[in-house]
Amino acid sequence: MRHDHITSAKQLSREDIEAVLDRASEIAADPAAYADRHEGALLGLMFFEPSTRTKMSFSAAIKRLGGDIVDMGPVDSSSVQKGESLADTVRVVEGYADALVLRHPSEGSAQMASEFVDVPLINGGDGAGQHPTQTLLDLYTIRENAGLDDLTIGIMGDLKYGRTVHSLAYALTNFETRQHFISPESLKLPRNVRYDLHEQGSSIKEHTELAEILPSLDVLYVTRIQKERFPDESEYREVAGEYQIDAETLEAAQDSLTVMHPLPRVDEIAHDIDETEYATYFEQAHNGVPVRMALLDLLLGGEQ
Amino acid sequence: MRHDHITSAKQLSREDIEAVLDRASEIAADPAAYADRHEGALLGLMFFEPSTRTKMSFSAAIKRLGGDIVDMGPVDSSSVQKGESLADTVRVVEGYADALVLRHPSEGSAQMASEFVDVPLINGGDGAGQHPTQTLLDLYTIRENAGLDDLTIGIMGDLKYGRTVHSLAYALTNFETRQHFISPESLKLPRNVRYDLHEQGSSIKEHTELAEILPSLDVLYVTRIQKERFPDESEYREVAGEYQIDAETLEAAQDSLTVMHPLPRVDEIAHDIDETEYATYFEQAHNGVPVRMALLDLLLGGEQ
Amino acid sequence: MRHDHITSAKQLSREDIEAVLDRASEIAADPAAYADRHEGALLGLMFFEPSTRTKMSFSAAIKRLGGDIVDMGPVDSSSVQKGESLADTVRVVEGYADALVLRHPSEGSAQMASEFVDVPLINGGDGAGQHPTQTLLDLYTIRENAGLDDLTIGIMGDLKYGRTVHSLAYALTNFETRQHFISPESLKLPRNVRYDLHEQGSSIKEHTELAEILPSLDVLYVTRIQKERFPDESEYREVAGEYQIDAETLEAAQDSLTVMHPLPRVDEIAHDIDETEYATYFEQAHNGVPVRMALLDLLLGGEQ
Repeated sequence: MRHDHITSAKQLSREDIEAVLDRASEIAADPAAYADRHEGALLGLMFFEPSTRTKMSFSAAIKRLGGDIVDMGPVDSSSVQKGESLADTVRVVEGYADALVLRHPSEGSAQMASEFVDVPLINGGDGAGQHPTQTLLDLYTIRENAGLDDLTIGIMGDLKYGRTVHSLAYALTNFETRQHFISPESLKLPRNVRYDLHEQGSSIKEHTELAEILPSLDVLYVTRIQKERFPDESEYREVAGEYQIDAETLEAAQDSLTVMHPLPRVDEIAHDIDETEYATYFEQAHNGVPVRMALLDLLLGGEQ
Repeated sequence: MRHDHITSAKQLSREDIEAVLDRASEIAADPAAYADRHEGALLGLMFFEPSTRTKMSFSAAIKRLGGDIVDMGPVDSSSVQKGESLADTVRVVEGYADALVLRHPSEGSAQMASEFVDVPLINGGDGAGQHPTQTLLDLYTIRENAGLDDLTIGIMGDLKYGRTVHSLAYALTNFETRQHFISPESLKLPRNVRYDLHEQGSSIKEHTELAEILPSLDVLYVTRIQKERFPDESEYREVAGEYQIDAETLEAAQDSLTVMHPLPRVDEIAHDIDETEYATYFEQAHNGVPVRMALLDLLLGGEQ
Repeated sequence: MRHDHITSAKQLSREDIEAVLDRASEIAADPAAYADRHEGALLGLMFFEPSTRTKMSFSAAIKRLGGDIVDMGPVDSSSVQKGESLADTVRVVEGYADALVLRHPSEGSAQMASEFVDVPLINGGDGAGQHPTQTLLDLYTIRENAGLDDLTIGIMGDLKYGRTVHSLAYALTNFETRQHFISPESLKLPRNVRYDLHEQGSSIKEHTELAEILPSLDVLYVTRIQKERFPDESEYREVAGEYQIDAETLEAAQDSLTVMHPLPRVDEIAHDIDETEYATYFEQAHNGVPVRMALLDLLLGGEQ
């Protein structure tokens, strides 16, 4: 890793990504070998908005490496309430920890904050901006289940507002992938994202119906369509219903299809899929631990 | 322990209970011997409602065993806010930990949740339902102070709504005990609980006045009478006042009487009792640590 | 240290203070030598009001000593909600930890609480009362940067309500210091504090303008002037503006001037000072870790 801070998935080259995923594979294969690797290391958690799984997963990751957390706690109990700037807060907190994770509602805040600190800072999600460790765990899950090259992936749901989806799609341009985007017209990929993907020389196609493309997919990445995006509930129901899948939907899929979801889900994926071989979304969430362990290991100075 | 999950005190046989209490005694006698016993083990804390002492006590327990916690944090910062089901949440969180503690306001939630996870799950209280580790620490405290066989115990206060009391009474039917229940008419044991106790062949008696039975008691277990149970405050005051004890009340008791309370207390037990030999309620709270250590040790695979 | 509990900076003699600062210096010089010093020790955190930096700094301190925390969590999730007295709460929590830190909005609460517990209790701030570890880290920062004897210090801002300032001024009377207090008339030192300082034989002077005294200062300790202290915002702006400093203000200062602030700052110190040699406020915040490590080490039984 040539990076001190991880603020965006876009900054990561194919080489960077593979370094993290390779390390994550090693960790997953032999976690005991890493159990004391960073004994005494403290990870500062600065979550300016709630995020159960990102926070728990980073906590588990540093603890599985022998380290520990120092948690800022919920934002209403922080100095922010007294009008402190983010730049001041991170400069104080870096004195309490060996690395920082920052989650903040403002896009660009992680990049800004990283300029004020000397310890490694990881972006744990900055509003509509980036969430690079989600992208890394998505890539890891794809690689483990379907491989990252010669991959046909379908990404379905809210493609307009979904930050997760944009980062993943961009990161996949580092590999040999055919990307299919499936969404209602009103929630298509934004023009600028589409442009970025083309620029990277990526093969992408857009669809409004899953059935058109399902049989050819190695991976189906489902995201939630949020009620708030629609003017009224009836319109939401009508549209969202077409992008929900169940065991019957998947009869047309390859046996080896991997179904992913960043979670939490509401009803995009019916429960009858949970017990099938397709369901990979809980494994995907669990993969957050080895992937974040790998990233922390590299940033805190693990031997290569 | 033959159990993977601990969801209810009712599932515990006399043998199970004694295995936990014996281990707790060993731990209390030589805590240093257990300080590294579960190094690296992570306990996931899922508290969907606040509970200071249960949470701190489980935290202390796993840390005294050399392990650590991964805390979901307060419920308003969890994915539940985004409409995630409890089944999904536990399936995600089990990937971050080696065992789970679940506290949830809905009766039966721990049992339901346990069916979705592979790691051991402990019920940390499910609403009006069960709270088995409270029962175990109560039993441990009784055994340490008065013994569990040939015991005469009085249980006083709100016997109608008090979950703690029902579980304890039921668990005591595994031992040679004479149980006396002291409460106002309006807060007597529910018929179904009384029935269950009789079914177990237990000797139980009901009273409206403590004085009737106080001199014969080895243990007096006091619980709080909640204002909310009464139509108006004056009625509450009148009734509750009769079930409050002070040093003078206890002049009629045996010198060896053990006074317990699950805490927090309001004014059921006057402060002039705190410094007497009777007062065992703080010790009782502290016993939560060795008892939970014992339970975790058995569930995480301590040698028998 | 002859003390079991640290409830007030006033209880600390020059000898006590130097014992803590000397230990802190040793720790800062060789942190690795202390990394396992208190392995297994648990510090109970009881924060009845939010305080990001005090809490994070104590967490980091005990963890850098090889120990861990048991956190009561935010007050709305505590038994206090159920009407439990502070005396009862601390008596329960002491069973979960080897030492306690108490932060509470009521002046005198730490002293009161300390009378109910056997484990060492440290006051982490009690409303308008004391905050002794802040005073110790202030003293440490002064000693490291300017020395504590033959010191000329200016303390500026809200001197009427500022608890931090009163404790620091009092503690400085143990050393050879000339103290200058700079504030608007309406926010001068309270008469009783001034009286206390005189009683201790301290040399103190009061000013309304920084310029009068700035060139002679070794240390300038700036505090925030709170809007809430003024009847209307325009009056606040006018007064507060005169007690804000920037790089230009400091042209009249000695090159070796040390500028301190307990943080969070709002606009008392302009950002153009941050990158100068004067700026010591982030270092000051970071010093909370070695100073609290030192205090914990002494209270938990470090060898002298």
